[in-house]
Amino acid sequence: MRLALLGCGTVGSEVVRLLHEQSADLAARIGAPLEIAGIAVRRHGRDRGDLPVDPALFTTDPLALIKSDDVDVVVEMVGGIEPARTWLVEALRAGKSVVTANKALLAEDGGALHDAAAEGGADLYYEASVAGAIPLLRPLRESLHGDRINRVTGIVNGTTNFILSAMDASGAGFAEALEEATELGYAEADPTADVEGFDAAAKAAILASLAFHTRVGAADVYREGITEVTAADMASAKAMGCTIKLLCIAARGADPQGRETVSVRVHPAMIPLSHPLASVGDAFNAVFVEAEAAGQLMFYGRGAGGAPTASAVLGDVVAVARNRLAGARAASESAYADLSVRPMGEALTRYHISLDVADRPGVLASVAGVFARHDVSIATVRQGSAEAGSGRGEDADLVIVTHVAPDAALAATVRELRGLDTVRSVTSVLRVEGGV
Amino acid sequence: MRLALLGCGTVGSEVVRLLHEQSADLAARIGAPLEIAGIAVRRHGRDRGDLPVDPALFTTDPLALIKSDDVDVVVEMVGGIEPARTWLVEALRAGKSVVTANKALLAEDGGALHDAAAEGGADLYYEASVAGAIPLLRPLRESLHGDRINRVTGIVNGTTNFILSAMDASGAGFAEALEEATELGYAEADPTADVEGFDAAAKAAILASLAFHTRVGAADVYREGITEVTAADMASAKAMGCTIKLLCIAARGADPQGRETVSVRVHPAMIPLSHPLASVGDAFNAVFVEAEAAGQLMFYGRGAGGAPTASAVLGDVVAVARNRLAGARAASESAYADLSVRPMGEALTRYHISLDVADRPGVLASVAGVFARHDVSIATVRQGSAEAGSGRGEDADLVIVTHVAPDAALAATVRELRGLDTVRSVTSVLRVEGGV
Repeated sequence: MRLALLGCGTVGSEVVRLLHEQSADLAARIGAPLEIAGIAVRRHGRDRGDLPVDPALFTTDPLALIKSDDVDVVVEMVGGIEPARTWLVEALRAGKSVVTANKALLAEDGGALHDAAAEGGADLYYEASVAGAIPLLRPLRESLHGDRINRVTGIVNGTTNFILSAMDASGAGFAEALEEATELGYAEADPTADVEGFDAAAKAAILASLAFHTRVGAADVYREGITEVTAADMASAKAMGCTIKLLCIAARGADPQGRETVSVRVHPAMIPLSHPLASVGDAFNAVFVEAEAAGQLMFYGRGAGGAPTASAVLGDVVAVARNRLAGARAASESAYADLSVRPMGEALTRYHISLDVADRPGVLASVAGVFARHDVSIATVRQGSAEAGSGRGEDADLVIVTHVAPDAALAATVRELRGLDTVRSVTSVLRVEGGV
Repeated sequence: MRLALLGCGTVGSEVVRLLHEQSADLAARIGAPLEIAGIAVRRHGRDRGDLPVDPALFTTDPLALIKSDDVDVVVEMVGGIEPARTWLVEALRAGKSVVTANKALLAEDGGALHDAAAEGGADLYYEASVAGAIPLLRPLRESLHGDRINRVTGIVNGTTNFILSAMDASGAGFAEALEEATELGYAEADPTADVEGFDAAAKAAILASLAFHTRVGAADVYREGITEVTAADMASAKAMGCTIKLLCIAARGADPQGRETVSVRVHPAMIPLSHPLASVGDAFNAVFVEAEAAGQLMFYGRGAGGAPTASAVLGDVVAVARNRLAGARAASESAYADLSVRPMGEALTRYHISLDVADRPGVLASVAGVFARHDVSIATVRQGSAEAGSGRGEDADLVIVTHVAPDAALAATVRELRGLDTVRSVTSVLRVEGGV
């Protein structure tokens, strides 16, 4: 079984290393040895002397490698939309099996890959694209196919989870925690893709597609990063027995006509400390799945890093190699349900809102009136908090947690609160998940 | 795609219900409708009026049903060794795909089933046999096949986890907690299989077989139940910042000649509260996997119950049905590694030992001498504890935690300690896992 490896960075070099170290085991599991036909790199000459591989295998011509009759499986570890898309479409159409870790491409134009796979009768596997080594996509795409998934809630970005965990532990603000993450190597020099939620949104699209048998793309995902989460927000969360996590949420719903829909979103949210996701610290990932018959399931592990990602890539390589030897093919894309993706405004969410208000009669009535006008039901109200309410004479703190309502109604409520005479400032607005 | 269902109890009736409710989805996922060809039950006449199924499908002749040309997939939900083994071997040899939840049979004689599957070129799936709905076997048997698993540590029995959680929460003894579990329906009238660890041992054998590519049977598993865990043990654990769980552990090791081996065992053990398994409460299950490249992974969910188990069964049904339609077959048994299973005495474990000793000079020296004679290294010693040590004049408490040593040496150490003059009693002996 001959492999073309595209890319030889952190993940690629780990894959090469594991292919070497575990070659006897892999051959026994597959029933045939795995051999590297070539490794496409951007340029020769970089020092790869420590890799246990013949230097003659490196090439700067990926297309020639992919098209070679000598190649059965193409493993893409380059990332980005182009030229990866062109390469993989070419490979799949030619009937070669593809294993990829490319979440951006899958979220942007997964359809092109799935269509090419169908055309070429080829396998397309991408376990490494979401949550690194955690076996997550195979369970969604196989184990749970006898069940009906209602909701997937995940922590799928290690960088932001490290930052939020640090803010929770030390009371630091976002900028300070980001600096720590950068120093420790948990955040890249340009952290935009992580802290603005782009990375998590791509993964959310992939998870939602599998969970709901519907093509969901990155553009369908509502996205909000963590750059505006403040130390005060984290303190508010703690006062409620909660913490703040950047969650990706894909949930079944219904439109006003009662037709089934899905909503897919990434944003920071308060979750109670008793929720299994609350204790997922550092750069770990975890995904919580709620299914009709199976109930609540959680998958936990390292979401990134060379070795964990390489483990997921090689698991897929073994699977596609076995399929080829058996002359079989894995189940192809399942998108029969074709549900419509609901805009964020229609998603049902809950808000936690902290207000700094004038301490005089009628204030609560005016605030409550705003919620009522937007048809938003209030779950709990607390007035005056120890840290902030005391010693400010004329002011009081008001903390309101709502019941579930359309996100647009909640956002409109907050906008109107900001304009209210009696409201000095809206000190914190956070969505709430996991049953506070 | 025609199914023969064997058994129509808690799991079977839930499978019938889900097949009915989700029929359109299941057909879309498979590419063909699933139909029930027959349901084998022990006797007619039991009231199954609320099941959405034609009563004419019930039969008391399972063999005739299995042999019928009209049947593609046999789903066994009866349990026990015989007659289930005869039925499934018959089905597999005849080339029918088999889905089973029968952990006892798989652990007792999984080889007979795997051999029959190989003979008939048939699929054998059994996700529901371990940890109910938690997708665990498919990850082990597929996702992690590019990796090297070093250790699997699991809480795989809900009844005992409920009992130990209750003991931890309330300080109750075993008998009292068992009574509560029985009242709430978490323990069966005869709880032997659960509380003595037989159920967990069967699951341990299945997990070890998959993780280490080696046939491991129930007889290879060292087994100790929780009936002798006392309230004092739990108090000792708490004093150490730990709790007690019934763990199934399958670990790679080496024999004295340096050859790779596995050890597979089920016993109660102290684990630190910081370990992810410590917070798995009530009747939940969780399995912690340590792999070379993937690092630490955890799978969490409901391990039992009609609906969760039915979810796992139907996931397998969809998989085997798809394979049949594609004319393909899943990877067959992987037992190429054929490692030898180490006896418990050679397994490397750590002990936590509480002693009630005479409070006089030389006692610690004599106790420490026993450990030294058995070549067991002591990690920590604490003398005198608040609850018990005070007010007893001549006595003192000694709590010793060892480093890792062969279990036989640790057991011999305890035996000799019991005979020591200066030791009034050995008040608690527990194995320690998870890095206390």
